[in-house]
Amino acid sequence: MNTEGERMYKLAEKLFPICRSITGEGVVKTLSIISDCITAEMTIHHVPSGTQVFDWTVPKEWKIRQAYIEDENNHRIIDFEKNNLHVIGYSLPVDKWVDLDELKEYIYTQKDQPDVIPYVTSYYKERIGFCMSENQKNSLKEGKYHMYVDSELFDGSLTYGEVVIKGRTQDEILFSTYVCHPSMADNECSGPSLAAELINYVSKRDNRYTYRFVFIPETIGSITYLSRNLEYLKEHVKAGFVLSCVGDDREYSVIESKYADTLADKVLKNILSYHAPQYKTYSFLQRGSDERQYNAVGVELPVVAFCRSKYGEYPEYHTSADDMTLVSEKGFQGSFDVMTQVIEALEHNYYYRINIICEPQLGKRGLYPTISQKGSYDAIMALRDFIAYADGKNDLIDISNIINVPVRELCTIADQLDNGGMLDKKR
Amino acid sequence: MNTEGERMYKLAEKLFPICRSITGEGVVKTLSIISDCITAEMTIHHVPSGTQVFDWTVPKEWKIRQAYIEDENNHRIIDFEKNNLHVIGYSLPVDKWVDLDELKEYIYTQKDQPDVIPYVTSYYKERIGFCMSENQKNSLKEGKYHMYVDSELFDGSLTYGEVVIKGRTQDEILFSTYVCHPSMADNECSGPSLAAELINYVSKRDNRYTYRFVFIPETIGSITYLSRNLEYLKEHVKAGFVLSCVGDDREYSVIESKYADTLADKVLKNILSYHAPQYKTYSFLQRGSDERQYNAVGVELPVVAFCRSKYGEYPEYHTSADDMTLVSEKGFQGSFDVMTQVIEALEHNYYYRINIICEPQLGKRGLYPTISQKGSYDAIMALRDFIAYADGKNDLIDISNIINVPVRELCTIADQLDNGGMLDKKR
Amino acid sequence: MNTEGERMYKLAEKLFPICRSITGEGVVKTLSIISDCITAEMTIHHVPSGTQVFDWTVPKEWKIRQAYIEDENNHRIIDFEKNNLHVIGYSLPVDKWVDLDELKEYIYTQKDQPDVIPYVTSYYKERIGFCMSENQKNSLKEGKYHMYVDSELFDGSLTYGEVVIKGRTQDEILFSTYVCHPSMADNECSGPSLAAELINYVSKRDNRYTYRFVFIPETIGSITYLSRNLEYLKEHVKAGFVLSCVGDDREYSVIESKYADTLADKVLKNILSYHAPQYKTYSFLQRGSDERQYNAVGVELPVVAFCRSKYGEYPEYHTSADDMTLVSEKGFQGSFDVMTQVIEALEHNYYYRINIICEPQLGKRGLYPTISQKGSYDAIMALRDFIAYADGKNDLIDISNIINVPVRELCTIADQLDNGGMLDKKR
Repeated sequence: MNTEGERMYKLAEKLFPICRSITGEGVVKTLSIISDCITAEMTIHHVPSGTQVFDWTVPKEWKIRQAYIEDENNHRIIDFEKNNLHVIGYSLPVDKWVDLDELKEYIYTQKDQPDVIPYVTSYYKERIGFCMSENQKNSLKEGKYHMYVDSELFDGSLTYGEVVIKGRTQDEILFSTYVCHPSMADNECSGPSLAAELINYVSKRDNRYTYRFVFIPETIGSITYLSRNLEYLKEHVKAGFVLSCVGDDREYSVIESKYADTLADKVLKNILSYHAPQYKTYSFLQRGSDERQYNAVGVELPVVAFCRSKYGEYPEYHTSADDMTLVSEKGFQGSFDVMTQVIEALEHNYYYRINIICEPQLGKRGLYPTISQKGSYDAIMALRDFIAYADGKNDLIDISNIINVPVRELCTIADQLDNGGMLDKKR
Repeated sequence: MNTEGERMYKLAEKLFPICRSITGEGVVKTLSIISDCITAEMTIHHVPSGTQVFDWTVPKEWKIRQAYIEDENNHRIIDFEKNNLHVIGYSLPVDKWVDLDELKEYIYTQKDQPDVIPYVTSYYKERIGFCMSENQKNSLKEGKYHMYVDSELFDGSLTYGEVVIKGRTQDEILFSTYVCHPSMADNECSGPSLAAELINYVSKRDNRYTYRFVFIPETIGSITYLSRNLEYLKEHVKAGFVLSCVGDDREYSVIESKYADTLADKVLKNILSYHAPQYKTYSFLQRGSDERQYNAVGVELPVVAFCRSKYGEYPEYHTSADDMTLVSEKGFQGSFDVMTQVIEALEHNYYYRINIICEPQLGKRGLYPTISQKGSYDAIMALRDFIAYADGKNDLIDISNIINVPVRELCTIADQLDNGGMLDKKR
Repeated sequence: MNTEGERMYKLAEKLFPICRSITGEGVVKTLSIISDCITAEMTIHHVPSGTQVFDWTVPKEWKIRQAYIEDENNHRIIDFEKNNLHVIGYSLPVDKWVDLDELKEYIYTQKDQPDVIPYVTSYYKERIGFCMSENQKNSLKEGKYHMYVDSELFDGSLTYGEVVIKGRTQDEILFSTYVCHPSMADNECSGPSLAAELINYVSKRDNRYTYRFVFIPETIGSITYLSRNLEYLKEHVKAGFVLSCVGDDREYSVIESKYADTLADKVLKNILSYHAPQYKTYSFLQRGSDERQYNAVGVELPVVAFCRSKYGEYPEYHTSADDMTLVSEKGFQGSFDVMTQVIEALEHNYYYRINIICEPQLGKRGLYPTISQKGSYDAIMALRDFIAYADGKNDLIDISNIINVPVRELCTIADQLDNGGMLDKKR
């Protein structure tokens, strides 16, 4: 039996070659592969092009079959078949011979990283465009070139997937990840792979919370999703996590919610402070993925983003260097371990209150050393501190933060006291 | 056409030679000169001696015509004509020959600065007194001396000036400066000169706020003014600034309000944090000018003090060394630039709220790059951050503080969005 | 006439030899000695064994007459007569010859401090036990040993003492100290000695507050006391102090209340910040004495603990090395000085408000320099700052903290202004 890390890496590998964009077959195929890997049902939604979603309009659907540039000798100097980053997202079709000067007007490179192909899109302005490395561009010789893109923009739909796993309450935990980038490993394939594995984890538990997983195109997808679900989400979502760039094995990162004051901020930071004390905190000023929409004015859901290396901060980001060598089973496993600890912490996160006045007599319950000597209480300080701060003012994560004991240990203590009938708990 | 700095320096030069005190002709003449330099009407108020103003009584008016000490050879060793600091403020008249020992009982010096003549007053206890440098005092020879002061204390009045420039609302911004020190450049002439120039600045704008400028004798003047206007001011003043020592070209200083929690504190610190990041903050414990009364128990107006070198902190303070060489056009201009930025920030300072749910689509409004590539958003981060925090909870200055962008830039952004109908604003 | 330090040291000396436990004759004798040293009446309470007190049951009473271990030559290797730490608290009786191996099962030592006899108890589980130094244990030779303890456990009572000194109001200040440890100087005898001296101090004053002093066995005693007085204490106690380890002359320590937010925290820290600026602050996580119960869920009284060297932190703690050489008259005197300053601060601690609008004219009241020159106000800054912050929002200790002037000086200022009719005050 495989580890979660191995399974996530394998799923990412399957998703990697697909040419995704914010609409079209790539998204559909991606959702279908994910759907096959999960133990819960995924609902697929299709929203027609032209649909008004808040301030935006669902764009036309983009289909691409083939694309290349060939030289006078019919040698293809770049080919979409070999790397789908070679065409800018939403490129219009073209079939034209041009000279080098004109060709260069259509070529996008990343000058500060001359070896890599950049990832470029032009969703909301119609353009033709190709991407290659700056080095390749510089090596092109004078002559005629054939620009060829066989693509079309048409009234189709925007597609997204949704998995809801009902819990004992209607309170919800939201996981959101995107399915709209072409072949990028960490910045695209890792998020859906982690989400899939978390679906399988959650499906096996008896849950207090209802868990909602959404697989959407970034920005336009979250806006579309929110336009259809905002009121319900505002009423029910207690914490949410955007998953992106979760497959590499470098640092851990939190991108805080707008005011860094939500349950999502609190629980994720608490877990990371034990799991990876050197984790990085980015303020909302450094946001970039769908936490933008979830925290937007009028939405204001309690959502943070979780990454290993944060998008926009690592050199391979949005280039052909973000490939399957950048991610690893170990990297995935770390992310999975963090998010499952987050889930466990949330599931146990009540406002606890000891229902006994003064300290309970722990001795008669076998919870206290029977001999009293200097040092004999050290082993039970977590228990005593939990009892002191379980006063109805703090939730479990607050108590963990106050008494400096991991939530995991406090869950055991809380259960022990709860079983002894000494504890009241409230949502 | 002169710069504001030049004009302010010139006005200060005119004001410098006048012998002012808390009452009397010096104040009247000062107000008259200022009145001639401003493009708005100044109302002059006379409050009779003996008037009860809260816990205080308006004192008698002091008039001084001449004062000197001469030696046995009728050589005037000090003469009020040459420097009006040579007589203590409110000195009683005297015309008496004394020997050196007796003379010394009437002489005040600044022992720790032996070169300078100190500024000394005795408003509330009747006294005769002369001031000179410690060095001069030490050089006096045995012999007879003629002490002569031709002054009188009589039932007259306390005079102050007031300029009110009506805005679109009754909400007010208060500027307060004093006109009661004799020949001191930074500690006296600079404040009224800056206030005059700000009057001219404000007169030319279309203002949201009503601007109130008061030119008063320090302490007794502000108490008198408050005793007549307290209820109105408490209802309408949203921020106030005491202007003192604003003509030198050293650091910038803020003296905070009592709890450092007013709009005046917030806006002045915000502006200085960009204009002069090394500015000095003094707590209210280091107060000293009329912010004392504006923040006093029962008054509690949102008022701070603004200085270049803070009164009481620079060596020339309250001595003959505080002359026109201490101030400069450049020093004045810096203060003017800060206070006009403060005014602009206040005028634009609303609680803004984006009236669109989720992020607005900036692309269709030409506010967003049409091509999406790594780094392409850096130029519009201020716009995006403004939109994120314009949620009705923050005023413009709060947003500036959160997103680290000067208010000046945010005004442009706010106008842009406002013109696009995307923004609600509230006082 | 002796100093307080001398008297406290002497009382501690009398209390030292007594073998105390949480019940029994030692407590009764201790209370009787204290009672003889105080100028107020102590009420002695006896609570029968078996009484339910919240989650606990008052234990049986323990009586011990004699205890020793002798070797084959009837040589007593340890003897309760010589040091009452040689028997564990609540040891069952025994009279049995055993070999060395079996003997060792009954011997408790402090391995990390091989020279000292540890203090060990087993209140809630019936055991036989002896204590000696690790060195002595290691030096024992093979052979037969006679374990002898002449003790009994029987239905008796738990005893505590209570002194209440009525003040002008029912608001109360609580002092709590324990009387349940055998021969330990700092960790046992110092607290009751200080409490006794404070009783004498308070008895001589005209008090605003009612002062309550309780002398109880630790833990079970405070629980018992609270079970009988909780509602009254919750209504009336405004600040409370557990006194423990107050006789040595090392640092000063505060153990904060649960959220470090009570009047007791505030006043004690304020006083220590002037008396001993290097004092140590321990969070409630490092609690250990009866502040545990006073801050427990459902109790939540505003109580901190005060120590010189904190219990549990100094090497002699809970060993035979905590003897009369560890405490000193000087150490006691320091604690007394701190706590009497605390009492004085509390007695004067009102919310003050100047009833004059704007600054009062201090000059006409003789409180202000009549000559005004640079530097002339330094001497009255405390007065001016008090007036600025006596605005009804701050109590006297808050003002002290804001303006950085000791409460002691502020009391004089407050009295001065109060006598002048310029001050309103509220509880």
